[in-house]
Amino acid sequence: MTRLAVTDFAAEARAVLDTSVWDWLDGGAEREWTVAGNRAALDRVALVPRVLADVSGCDTKTTLVDSGASLPVAIAPVAYHRLFHPEGELATARAAAAAGVPFTVGTLSSVGLEELAETGAVLWFQLYWLRDRGRLLDLVRRAEEAGVEALVVTVDVPFMGRRLRDAANGMTLPPTVHAALLDEGSSGRAHRSARDSSAIASHTAEIFSPAVTWHDIAWLRGQTRLPLLLKGVLDPEDAVRAAAEGARGVVVSNHGGRQLDQAVPAAMALPAVAEAVAGLPDSRFQVLVDSGIRSGSDILSALALGASGVLLGRPVIWGLAAGGESGCARVLSLLETELRNALGLAGCPDLRSATRLRVARMPYFPGKTP
Amino acid sequence: MTRLAVTDFAAEARAVLDTSVWDWLDGGAEREWTVAGNRAALDRVALVPRVLADVSGCDTKTTLVDSGASLPVAIAPVAYHRLFHPEGELATARAAAAAGVPFTVGTLSSVGLEELAETGAVLWFQLYWLRDRGRLLDLVRRAEEAGVEALVVTVDVPFMGRRLRDAANGMTLPPTVHAALLDEGSSGRAHRSARDSSAIASHTAEIFSPAVTWHDIAWLRGQTRLPLLLKGVLDPEDAVRAAAEGARGVVVSNHGGRQLDQAVPAAMALPAVAEAVAGLPDSRFQVLVDSGIRSGSDILSALALGASGVLLGRPVIWGLAAGGESGCARVLSLLETELRNALGLAGCPDLRSATRLRVARMPYFPGKTP
Amino acid sequence: MTRLAVTDFAAEARAVLDTSVWDWLDGGAEREWTVAGNRAALDRVALVPRVLADVSGCDTKTTLVDSGASLPVAIAPVAYHRLFHPEGELATARAAAAAGVPFTVGTLSSVGLEELAETGAVLWFQLYWLRDRGRLLDLVRRAEEAGVEALVVTVDVPFMGRRLRDAANGMTLPPTVHAALLDEGSSGRAHRSARDSSAIASHTAEIFSPAVTWHDIAWLRGQTRLPLLLKGVLDPEDAVRAAAEGARGVVVSNHGGRQLDQAVPAAMALPAVAEAVAGLPDSRFQVLVDSGIRSGSDILSALALGASGVLLGRPVIWGLAAGGESGCARVLSLLETELRNALGLAGCPDLRSATRLRVARMPYFPGKTP
Amino acid sequence: MTRLAVTDFAAEARAVLDTSVWDWLDGGAEREWTVAGNRAALDRVALVPRVLADVSGCDTKTTLVDSGASLPVAIAPVAYHRLFHPEGELATARAAAAAGVPFTVGTLSSVGLEELAETGAVLWFQLYWLRDRGRLLDLVRRAEEAGVEALVVTVDVPFMGRRLRDAANGMTLPPTVHAALLDEGSSGRAHRSARDSSAIASHTAEIFSPAVTWHDIAWLRGQTRLPLLLKGVLDPEDAVRAAAEGARGVVVSNHGGRQLDQAVPAAMALPAVAEAVAGLPDSRFQVLVDSGIRSGSDILSALALGASGVLLGRPVIWGLAAGGESGCARVLSLLETELRNALGLAGCPDLRSATRLRVARMPYFPGKTP
Ligand SMILES: Cc1cc2nc3c(=O)[nH]c(=O)nc-3n(C[C@H](O)[C@H](O)[C@H](O)COP(=O)(O)O)c2cc1C
Ligand SMILES: Cc1cc2nc3c(=O)[nH]c(=O)nc-3n(C[C@H](O)[C@H](O)[C@H](O)COP(=O)(O)O)c2cc1C
Ligand SMILES: Cc1cc2nc3c(=O)[nH]c(=O)nc-3n(C[C@H](O)[C@H](O)[C@H](O)COP(=O)(O)O)c2cc1C
Ligand SMILES: Cc1cc2nc3c(=O)[nH]c(=O)nc-3n(C[C@H](O)[C@H](O)[C@H](O)COP(=O)(O)O)c2cc1C
Repeated sequence: MTRLAVTDFAAEARAVLDTSVWDWLDGGAEREWTVAGNRAALDRVALVPRVLADVSGCDTKTTLVDSGASLPVAIAPVAYHRLFHPEGELATARAAAAAGVPFTVGTLSSVGLEELAETGAVLWFQLYWLRDRGRLLDLVRRAEEAGVEALVVTVDVPFMGRRLRDAANGMTLPPTVHAALLDEGSSGRAHRSARDSSAIASHTAEIFSPAVTWHDIAWLRGQTRLPLLLKGVLDPEDAVRAAAEGARGVVVSNHGGRQLDQAVPAAMALPAVAEAVAGLPDSRFQVLVDSGIRSGSDILSALALGASGVLLGRPVIWGLAAGGESGCARVLSLLETELRNALGLAGCPDLRSATRLRVARMPYFPGKTP
Repeated sequence: MTRLAVTDFAAEARAVLDTSVWDWLDGGAEREWTVAGNRAALDRVALVPRVLADVSGCDTKTTLVDSGASLPVAIAPVAYHRLFHPEGELATARAAAAAGVPFTVGTLSSVGLEELAETGAVLWFQLYWLRDRGRLLDLVRRAEEAGVEALVVTVDVPFMGRRLRDAANGMTLPPTVHAALLDEGSSGRAHRSARDSSAIASHTAEIFSPAVTWHDIAWLRGQTRLPLLLKGVLDPEDAVRAAAEGARGVVVSNHGGRQLDQAVPAAMALPAVAEAVAGLPDSRFQVLVDSGIRSGSDILSALALGASGVLLGRPVIWGLAAGGESGCARVLSLLETELRNALGLAGCPDLRSATRLRVARMPYFPGKTP
Repeated sequence: MTRLAVTDFAAEARAVLDTSVWDWLDGGAEREWTVAGNRAALDRVALVPRVLADVSGCDTKTTLVDSGASLPVAIAPVAYHRLFHPEGELATARAAAAAGVPFTVGTLSSVGLEELAETGAVLWFQLYWLRDRGRLLDLVRRAEEAGVEALVVTVDVPFMGRRLRDAANGMTLPPTVHAALLDEGSSGRAHRSARDSSAIASHTAEIFSPAVTWHDIAWLRGQTRLPLLLKGVLDPEDAVRAAAEGARGVVVSNHGGRQLDQAVPAAMALPAVAEAVAGLPDSRFQVLVDSGIRSGSDILSALALGASGVLLGRPVIWGLAAGGESGCARVLSLLETELRNALGLAGCPDLRSATRLRVARMPYFPGKTP
Repeated sequence: MTRLAVTDFAAEARAVLDTSVWDWLDGGAEREWTVAGNRAALDRVALVPRVLADVSGCDTKTTLVDSGASLPVAIAPVAYHRLFHPEGELATARAAAAAGVPFTVGTLSSVGLEELAETGAVLWFQLYWLRDRGRLLDLVRRAEEAGVEALVVTVDVPFMGRRLRDAANGMTLPPTVHAALLDEGSSGRAHRSARDSSAIASHTAEIFSPAVTWHDIAWLRGQTRLPLLLKGVLDPEDAVRAAAEGARGVVVSNHGGRQLDQAVPAAMALPAVAEAVAGLPDSRFQVLVDSGIRSGSDILSALALGASGVLLGRPVIWGLAAGGESGCARVLSLLETELRNALGLAGCPDLRSATRLRVARMPYFPGKTP
């Protein structure tokens, strides 16, 4: 089995995972229009390379929020890594540490924060807004103590999207996997199967609040010195508001097509968001992007469209499922190879020059579907 | 059989219906370009969600023309429901009553107006312009007496479109079904089969007038206090004229692709119509839309493109055929679920905020065809 | 076999014709990009209908150049009708006479002009520019004497396009068919087969001039009082020049995709040409169009895009092959039915209102391929 | 087997070549998005022909850089022709000489420069920037002495693109083929196979410099009186800079999709480059283009989009593989036939009028895929 493209790992993951787990990973909301749209929007991007720059030592180092990163890449929060591999988040965090990219621990991590801190990875912590504000603050404190460098507040999940594959499969957590940070064990809602519905969705509906507003962000801002990144912003006005409320950045994301089906593809939303925040007083404000990134060319496209970096969701999990820590490491190193290759061939000795590349758009995808 | 998407009911309906009835329901004019185009236009819409609004209690209640509605939805007029289920319009009207949405009784209803009034549904009455003006006025009076709340005047049927499937099938009404409001029994033109032509088309050619003009609308306006909705308007100037003639709204519609083939898809025509009437003095003037609406995301798209609500044609009939009143109720409740989900995930606590969503357009449909 | 759409006749024609004759009819130049493009451009057109006009008596009568026509339609010049049916042009001309539309006799007619005049059809005569100017003038005189009402000068054939199917088939005229107006009998170049080339192409290369210019048009203008129509114009400047040289109109055409492959689809070129000539002093100057017209909706689209009428090429021949005069008559009457239907459903009581319809464009063809 | 279109030769080549050689020829970088995009961009071009020009003697002669050419065509540099035919570059150069078009000898030629000079072909020499500047200058001198008329400096290969087919095949040079101008014999890196990687890529990484800049171009300019053509320019600013540094032209090229995957298709980049250099003081500065040219219509499209001529890569090699010198000659003569045909049918008596053709763009490719 060749491993020459990141998508090669998807085939391996699919082969080893239970259908219901694969579907949970691969699937999206309703018709999966936005899942497909994320790719369609990236697949239309045509990059205009420059020539005759010295690219013998392409520099990919950068700072994401306040964290150093060897690549303009961070690992996106993905719930329950132990569904994909017994070592779960431990394996992925170790691979991230080795690759030198920030690892985002999810509220629904299946491994404890403290254990993950020991991997040496730069950690970010993703926050789902718990209905119980006490528990929410506890999580923040625990993250602070574990040495987390940024809080990623997911703002596109007032409740979970309608993932029809999970409903059809009656997706449920197995007894061996649970939300390690929520002190709930394996008898909670996420473990109780029901016909035509996802137990994971029911569980989150029970514990997450659909009533979070900008006031809550302001309140959280007052509770912690950690920089805040709002994940799931697609409208430029929301990005500007995020800055006004003291966030240090946004992740342009539609949650990998798992929330609102028919939501705008991330690469289509990105330029307007980047432009809207370009003139803001706080020049440290960053626009990251995720949803559909699958290659070094995609990362380069994201930079050219205005992002400071990308988050990786499914590709990292493909590596995890395909080969644990080393599978994940292979994915990350392949992406580094691809990115260095793309930067060099686009005539970019560094990331800043990547943001200056001209971008054109094809009316449709002319290439081979992965 | 899963019933997780509205289109799942189409498969069930197809399985239980005679081919010629299914074809009559499913088909459109000539090449069915407009049938496909209706979907293509909706499938290009990319919605830009907002975040951090309190969506814990999404409010979907609204007023359509003068009728209260629990959703921005009304049941479109569809001729002869008894072709699809023995209870016919009684079943669909009951489901509409339960769901709290207006039910449009057609001129070609296969159940009497008075019986339908007893279901407790909010009723609208759809008027085809009969050649015999006396009979036309009789129908209006009967509708008024039955407590109908609006008259829906269909303006895109000077005669019926060329539906080739019906012609090929020699589509004819069975003896058990007839136009209950036209006092014709089962021996009329609609029951007489002929090779390579549709008896339903011949019947309507016989009794409907192709000579209706704006003057007739003005005349009708003088005959009744019921609010008028003109159904089948696609050009902005016609919408403005409708308002000038005292109509209370238009339905942007190409009759589900059953009249002029190559007519503009409804979602493509909608924005210009909505814009044209935005500045009119009568702020109560409404733009509704139908033709191709199949999901909560589609309803949200319609609102974002400028509609106050949608009419549902085929989806309601799929439910009726698949399971009578309860099948129809399932379709309506699924749409409510989807709409609430979409509103929440788009950050819209109410319908008004939905009309402010940004809309982008993909060059083609990236998702899975239903 | 149903005959509900014009394209249904194509299947019948294909079934009765020799492959090499079918290929000659159906094929186009090189990759047949323009053949497909002609449909693609028409298939993108979305028409915006009007409502509430009295369409009880849609008037389709018009004048094309100086000829009365019951429809905005003329029969395009097509060489050698006897390849498709023993009666050849006699059959098609009779059908045209019955339908009340002008019939264009080609320079490569396989039936004599005088015989065709006896059918009672309004005749136009299509001129290929013979290298021998004497023979050319003879043809013009013969046309004048036969009562022809217009000269259609084909300007897109300095030589024949590279029709690869014909080359592969070694396309040759059978002994029973020859160019009746060229007094050549059956021993000429068009009857001599050669490997990997079309004898029809060799023949035309021998007798047609590739050196015709605007000066020749001016000269011809001085030789005859017949109105001139230049067929094969796609650039607006050429249309303006045509008017300046005294032509009475142009046919926007790429010869059905048979000349320059990659030539702009006719429906794409039409609006700019129509606009360019709109302000010309001679208001009688007409823009006709052909290449890809297959239905009443297509004719309506052509009018809405600025044409005064259309020419029909292959569809007429499908009818001829499928059933001689009566097959051809069926095609024409189906098109009349479709056009009347389309006009009525678009709210157009006459052709003038059709030219005022709004036109939108889909990014791609959503409908069923014929 | 028909040879009516240039792409017919691809099938023949594929049939005779080893898979790994075919893949090396046919393939491109990563997903081959740009390979497909090159065609997609050309396939959208719709040309607007002119009429009534005397095209009896279409003149295709031109000057490319300082070389006379019978067509606006030159043979692109392609490494190691002996992989495709035992006579290698000798065969192709002879065919080029016969056709009267410049032949570009590659740095990675598998036949010596001096032998090629004896074919009588107009020679250009393509320069890859060797890490060893001494060897680089030696190559330039050798080229000058062989009578080369232009230096083509390839600027899009700081290192080779990631060609996944070659990596999967472990592509290696056979002992019979080597880089004749690099005095390396058959024991170098290009001959040593390795798993999951291309020996050709490893070899070039070893000897080519990724650190070339505009300063090096200026230096080279000072070392030779040969005119310089920079091959691989896509951004208009780079073209303007090329002129400022004294180059005599650029080749708009993405290396046939073999370098940066997701690089803009050449035909999409061409107009902006042509426009940017249109106003430059040195009116001799030329814009050539390659990547995807497969027919006379494509050459005409390139001219209409602003190029002075095209380079041909793969098509020439298809001919070489299919039939050595005569196969190659067939490809070139077919292209000449097609170009003369296209010019004539577009109403262009010469190349200058081709550059004035109007160009439209279809949203997608309507034709048959070759
Ligand atoms: C299986 C799965 C679980 C996810 N869980 C979370 C989560 O717990 N919290 C969160 O903010 N995002 C979650 N996401 C979304 C990712 O953070 C990210 O936005 C998305 O995966 C990016 O798209 P991609 O997978 O196409 O790269 C999840 C995504 C997947 C595929
Ligand atoms: C089987 C069928 C019968 C219909 N009968 C009528 C009718 O009697 N009067 C009318 O105004 N519209 C009629 N319509 C059109 C619908 O009111 C509505 O415009 C259309 O169905 C909307 O498109 P949709 O089916 O894609 O939702 C009919 C539609 C169908 C499918
Ligand atoms: C088989 C065939 C023969 C034709 N012969 C002629 C001809 O002799 N003279 C001419 O001006 N056009 C000729 N044409 C072109 C037609 O007049 C017309 O432009 C074209 O067929 C229109 O496209 P359509 O076939 O898609 O309707 C021919 C077309 C076909 C298909
Ligand atoms: C097999 C192969 C080898 C090539 N080798 C070289 C080379 O050595 N130097 C170079 O500048 N370009 C090289 N090219 C690129 C060509 O010069 C040219 O840019 C490209 O082939 C044009 O695209 P086309 O093949 O679609 O016509 C090569 C291309 C191919 C297909």
